Amino acid sequence: MFESAELGHEIDKERYDREEPELRAALLKAQYELVDCKKFPVVILIGGVDGAGKGETLNQINEWMDPRHIQTNALRPMAEDDGRPPMWKFWRVLPPNGKTGVFVGSWYSVPFIRRVYGETKSARFQAEIDQILRFEQMLTDEGALVLKFWLHLSKKGQKKQFEKLSRKKATRWRVTDTDWKHLDMYDKFQEVAQHMLRETSTADAPWLVVEGTDERYRSLTVGQTILDALRRRLDEPKIPHRNRKAGTTPSIDGVSIIDRLDLDRVVDKEVYKAELDEQQGRLNTLTRHKKFEKLSVVTAFEGSDAAGKGGSIRRITQALDARRYTVIPVAAPNDEEKARPYLWRFWRQLPERGRISIFDRTWYGRVLVERVEGYCSEVDWMRAYSEINDFEEQLAKNNTVVVKFWLQISNEEQLKRFEERKATPHKRHKITDEDWRNRDKWDAYRSAVCDMIDRTSTEHAPWTLVPANDKYYARLEVLRTLADAIEAAL
Amino acid sequence: MFESAELGHEIDKERYDREEPELRAALLKAQYELVDCKKFPVVILIGGVDGAGKGETLNQINEWMDPRHIQTNALRPMAEDDGRPPMWKFWRVLPPNGKTGVFVGSWYSVPFIRRVYGETKSARFQAEIDQILRFEQMLTDEGALVLKFWLHLSKKGQKKQFEKLSRKKATRWRVTDTDWKHLDMYDKFQEVAQHMLRETSTADAPWLVVEGTDERYRSLTVGQTILDALRRRLDEPKIPHRNRKAGTTPSIDGVSIIDRLDLDRVVDKEVYKAELDEQQGRLNTLTRHKKFEKLSVVTAFEGSDAAGKGGSIRRITQALDARRYTVIPVAAPNDEEKARPYLWRFWRQLPERGRISIFDRTWYGRVLVERVEGYCSEVDWMRAYSEINDFEEQLAKNNTVVVKFWLQISNEEQLKRFEERKATPHKRHKITDEDWRNRDKWDAYRSAVCDMIDRTSTEHAPWTLVPANDKYYARLEVLRTLADAIEAAL
Repeated sequence: MFESAELGHEIDKERYDREEPELRAALLKAQYELVDCKKFPVVILIGGVDGAGKGETLNQINEWMDPRHIQTNALRPMAEDDGRPPMWKFWRVLPPNGKTGVFVGSWYSVPFIRRVYGETKSARFQAEIDQILRFEQMLTDEGALVLKFWLHLSKKGQKKQFEKLSRKKATRWRVTDTDWKHLDMYDKFQEVAQHMLRETSTADAPWLVVEGTDERYRSLTVGQTILDALRRRLDEPKIPHRNRKAGTTPSIDGVSIIDRLDLDRVVDKEVYKAELDEQQGRLNTLTRHKKFEKLSVVTAFEGSDAAGKGGSIRRITQALDARRYTVIPVAAPNDEEKARPYLWRFWRQLPERGRISIFDRTWYGRVLVERVEGYCSEVDWMRAYSEINDFEEQLAKNNTVVVKFWLQISNEEQLKRFEERKATPHKRHKITDEDWRNRDKWDAYRSAVCDMIDRTSTEHAPWTLVPANDKYYARLEVLRTLADAIEAAL
Repeated sequence: MFESAELGHEIDKERYDREEPELRAALLKAQYELVDCKKFPVVILIGGVDGAGKGETLNQINEWMDPRHIQTNALRPMAEDDGRPPMWKFWRVLPPNGKTGVFVGSWYSVPFIRRVYGETKSARFQAEIDQILRFEQMLTDEGALVLKFWLHLSKKGQKKQFEKLSRKKATRWRVTDTDWKHLDMYDKFQEVAQHMLRETSTADAPWLVVEGTDERYRSLTVGQTILDALRRRLDEPKIPHRNRKAGTTPSIDGVSIIDRLDLDRVVDKEVYKAELDEQQGRLNTLTRHKKFEKLSVVTAFEGSDAAGKGGSIRRITQALDARRYTVIPVAAPNDEEKARPYLWRFWRQLPERGRISIFDRTWYGRVLVERVEGYCSEVDWMRAYSEINDFEEQLAKNNTVVVKFWLQISNEEQLKRFEERKATPHKRHKITDEDWRNRDKWDAYRSAVCDMIDRTSTEHAPWTLVPANDKYYARLEVLRTLADAIEAAL
């Protein structure tokens, strides 16, 4: 894998001076085109051997292009994240459409170094690699241009580089004891790097290994690669939504999980009052448990219109100290959110340790309203299932309890509630023309819901289907399920 | 001050049960009106004596109103801010128009407790109070509805409350050793609180002291106060921009600081090259100084169109490691930014310790383009001078070096550069119709610039006026000034 990067590539000064100005002008032009058209974001990773010029390459990119439209992310790999999953800090700084994010120290850093030091076993490392593959696949599927450079030096080359830097007073500080120690571990580093690069070099996000010895060669190679990739994407004709037939087939016998629900389960008012008190008390006690400070909870509410999501949420919040929870109403995305992958706005709302985020509508909008209304293409919502599963798995693995509710009412019950809302002055704002239009799409929504439940009810994050024709029954079911899930996690 | 809050206010259950449902419905209705019209944000502070029901009040608000549109902020007062000024964490969570932010633990907490413990002297405490007054004035001037509740208990009342809580197993955990210690310090707490409340109870953001003994009285009082204030603001007819004549008078002899600048200072190309190398090297060395890790730097660029801001910024970034700086191009605000005070988007971009933020155009837009184009009213830009001074003072006091450049070119030089840009294909995108239109407003901009410099060149954050007809001269002046400022701070 590193063979071509140990050939002693060199570019003489004359050629460099001839080519560099042209490259620079072309890069700048391409960058401004991107800034104007905002068609996609660019994500550039710079990894590789210490001393091979990672910092210099980063600076070169910032010098050639306009740094006002580049975000440099030199993340301390162990930076504080207050209980969010490891990928959270990278999600936070994803560049919006039109901008470029350069990462020195990326999602590869921690898995790589841990594996080199033998802190993770092969199976764990493999799982981390799979995770990275899914993340990058999501990025490119969402339209990002992902460019990954690995700067390489032979063992001799690295030693020479360290010696050179150590000779001059001005650069001596750059070679640390750790660097010398890593030089002794060179072979181990290379072995892990080879494996990692091979496994994560995909068609959409390939690695380019660049020999780091000669600065001019390295710079021109990186610069030219960025330029070519940018130009290719900028000049690409606008392709209509790829609509390969990748959809789902409705149940052929017409029997669906939703239809099988017994929607009419009821609870008597007196029973409800007593049980409500008990379950709320239980929930409150659980969230004051010492160990709760090490957990976080994500509660997701979806359901038919007028199924009573708001009422159920209130029965939860009533039970909790307001310092513990945040309720997040999910409506149309704003400017900042629209310019990034659709999961971005949910990542930014993840709870800290010891806290509960309650989402009123969720990331499932992608496979519900966006699917049914045709706001995204079929391939987009088809891939969303696994992206969402992956998102929730990351949460679950990170001590976050994920509890998801689908509240279902019957068509007749919905009609009744709509009519009631229309008739009650202070509830009228809760019903819009769109709600009425959605009723015509009842069947399409049912298919979408069934697919969603089949494809995203996982052991980490199962769906709870709640028959909700009776509000009392639904609320108790929600409270009990949430309390059970937290209890199990403590 | 606390006299009325020790009268033993009580509301009997019957009255409460009669009034509560109506209050609740009215509150919810007002909240939804606010959510829909997005006219202003609501900021509610809940402070007071421990045991007087701060948490309960917070929960009550969240129960009466729709918690989906309330952000609860229970900030750990000493939360990590990586080198930003103390107010940064509050700016971050300011609610947007239409939403409500409730603070338990606010900008009062740290100054208050430090003063009680004698960690700050009276003068320092007074300065902190002034700071708070300016902050709240800014909030209300920007349109926020600010409501401040102080829950009070007499010494006896507090003791009784602690004893009551300690008796039951379910509530015992709520009374800590610190609480008992604070009870012993009751008089000191009251003395400081009285002073603080008196000084910060203003016409636009008054404190309401509420007796905390009786839960029903406390709840109804807080709820009714919120409702009245909300209704008053919601029902207010839309007032046209108050335009009291508060503007500035142009210099009566026509002599301005801008006209006095010698714009034609030049530097020879050879001298430039040598000096550029030297100053860039110097800047680089300074940012690698051990002590630099304790500083941060905010560099602000303003100037005539085509004065060479971009070129000067590049000469700075060339000298720096890309991991050290962020360049922030300031254009029109996005949705999230428009819904908050105009300084919000700059607060959110403040550098961490050891880093440099370079703003290409800045918060001075308020007193430049917004003033000249009439995007905000005269009172709004008049008050901006002191708001900005206050912002920069907070930065300076917090180990942030603030360096501000105004790059000035002559009218003729600007015309020349515009023509050049028009003629050069890859520079054409840098010039718009608006740039041409702005030339007609040359005099209005000059007045605005002179006022800005007179009113915001402070010892903490002085302006550097840079004659920029000669690009070489301007760039060196910028580099030298920045390096001097950092050197002085180290």
